[in-house]
Amino acid sequence: MSPPLRVPYPDLERFAEACLVEAGAPHAHARTTAAHLARTDVFGVHSHGLKNLGGYLDKARRGGLDLAASPTAVVDGPAYALLDAHNGLGMVAGDTGVRTAVAKARQTGVAVVVVRGSTHFGAAGLYALTAAEAGMVGIVASNVDANMTAPGARGKVLGNNPLAYAVPAGRYPPVMLDIALSQVASLKVVKARDAGTPVPEGWIVDGEGRPTTDPSRYPDEGVMLPMSSHKGYGLAVLVDVLTGILAAGPTSDQIPSWLFEPDVPNGVAHVFLVVDPAVFGGAPPVGQRVADYLDRLHAAPLAQGAEEILHPGQLEWRRHDDALAHGVELPDDVAASLAEAGRRAGVRAPWA
Amino acid sequence: MSPPLRVPYPDLERFAEACLVEAGAPHAHARTTAAHLARTDVFGVHSHGLKNLGGYLDKARRGGLDLAASPTAVVDGPAYALLDAHNGLGMVAGDTGVRTAVAKARQTGVAVVVVRGSTHFGAAGLYALTAAEAGMVGIVASNVDANMTAPGARGKVLGNNPLAYAVPAGRYPPVMLDIALSQVASLKVVKARDAGTPVPEGWIVDGEGRPTTDPSRYPDEGVMLPMSSHKGYGLAVLVDVLTGILAAGPTSDQIPSWLFEPDVPNGVAHVFLVVDPAVFGGAPPVGQRVADYLDRLHAAPLAQGAEEILHPGQLEWRRHDDALAHGVELPDDVAASLAEAGRRAGVRAPWA
Repeated sequence: MSPPLRVPYPDLERFAEACLVEAGAPHAHARTTAAHLARTDVFGVHSHGLKNLGGYLDKARRGGLDLAASPTAVVDGPAYALLDAHNGLGMVAGDTGVRTAVAKARQTGVAVVVVRGSTHFGAAGLYALTAAEAGMVGIVASNVDANMTAPGARGKVLGNNPLAYAVPAGRYPPVMLDIALSQVASLKVVKARDAGTPVPEGWIVDGEGRPTTDPSRYPDEGVMLPMSSHKGYGLAVLVDVLTGILAAGPTSDQIPSWLFEPDVPNGVAHVFLVVDPAVFGGAPPVGQRVADYLDRLHAAPLAQGAEEILHPGQLEWRRHDDALAHGVELPDDVAASLAEAGRRAGVRAPWA
Repeated sequence: MSPPLRVPYPDLERFAEACLVEAGAPHAHARTTAAHLARTDVFGVHSHGLKNLGGYLDKARRGGLDLAASPTAVVDGPAYALLDAHNGLGMVAGDTGVRTAVAKARQTGVAVVVVRGSTHFGAAGLYALTAAEAGMVGIVASNVDANMTAPGARGKVLGNNPLAYAVPAGRYPPVMLDIALSQVASLKVVKARDAGTPVPEGWIVDGEGRPTTDPSRYPDEGVMLPMSSHKGYGLAVLVDVLTGILAAGPTSDQIPSWLFEPDVPNGVAHVFLVVDPAVFGGAPPVGQRVADYLDRLHAAPLAQGAEEILHPGQLEWRRHDDALAHGVELPDDVAASLAEAGRRAGVRAPWA
């Protein structure tokens, strides 16, 4: 096996931007989307980054996505807003949503912005990061198409609706968490299946809804379980309420796959909840309080065999720093997907 | 074994109120606290209800809790507030916190209220329910003393900080979820230990921080794991940020046990986040949208052997209705704890 491809971050961003522009996206939308996707790979979250660029462009070609659409306000209050993304790029919807919430929270201390009529917006955590980089606590969630079961059910019942947050952390880069509300990502089950190994209890049920450790028929039969069963189920319901219900739009059980149904709008909704920690006052500054807290977590006694205790997002920031210093590592599937996207858009990848 | 004691709800509430008044609590605080604790048992959450009354009263006697304290505002904005509970009853702090947030959200659409200097406030979900009963989406969390480990650590590192929400649901009573961010409650590990049975992987680590299925030395050695490992860990950190950090007070790693250190103030902080769904508009009314969504969840195909799919809180509402119709079932440990609390306060339990 040859070592994985490493590409300078600016090359990746420029390439993705060019593909989007060639496909008809306005320059501003192309820049926003390319930056979000490339930065996702910089953090090592390859499943949600540039790998999906070709899928978004394909969806636009087939009519399920409008590359030129910009979000508009349906409801606009001092501390809240409902935006309609008009089936545009999810990254534009996400970026607009969080920036709207940050601007409002700067005036009101707390703001909640819901964006409806959107498309898969990639990594939720990066929108939360935008809030944290503005000095705010950001909490971000989205509904997605049904891909996990509920306790007592079989088959796909609701989405494993991603939930993310980021918090300014003073001398550390922001604390970040970006999780799906299934016990594990589907990809982990697929990897176990391909390796022929059983999965732990609590990951999946079989086609009859029975607990199983056998992934061999996944995903044709069997489906992901919520994180800690009723806990993840309950949190996924909350995300559906804060997105589809508040938007008076579809909930996760009603949403088509953005990828496998490219002809139709995805119709997901996102929520951006932003709190300005400064309004509560107190000393020392909130970033220093968070950093001191992280230091206390790091200083806890280590488990046997463990080398360190990480705080949420610390691993991703290490990957980030490594990628900026030595190039972004592109797994084979991402490189292949990008090559195909470039071929269809008529843009040559500089690393090819 | 005799069937468990069943006591009419009003008797329970009056008894608890009388104990609190005899111990020196103002009538209003006694009523608020008694109603919260009794209602918790009505919902079947006996670990967080009247069982703890004696502990609160003991803490007051020993100086760690001021029964007469009322929360005051430290910071008071249109959409946010920071209150100080002055080491008073947690139920008074919780009730004041959520009502403050509801009143603000009615004006501003969204509000966040943090209460510091508080004491164990019982079941977080009932404060969220207060918001839902006012037509709002309520999200409530609290830090608690460190009782679970972090990935890579051994021993207690941070709290399994409870997180709860409630949502109006039209023709259904409100949707509710109230979870701790450990994989399971400590009580479940203790029950397995007492029964001599192993626990599933992912529940606890041993004294060296290694994964184990053997609960025999718990809790002297070994400690709870976060829900889904890094996911529950990350969410517990978020709760610490939204409570102790925003309040510029202690985080969970710095908080003493309210129960085992009765002489000192507990110092927990709570957060109440309330959103008025009506500000986003849309039709049909939000309660009907939620109820229709629940109906869709209920209608999913059943797992083999399952009889129904429940939505979050549905089981608790069944217990609630049964308790109001037939009396509140008091497990032996709750009955014994109440008898002792009554004896010390000089109040006779009407069922004794």
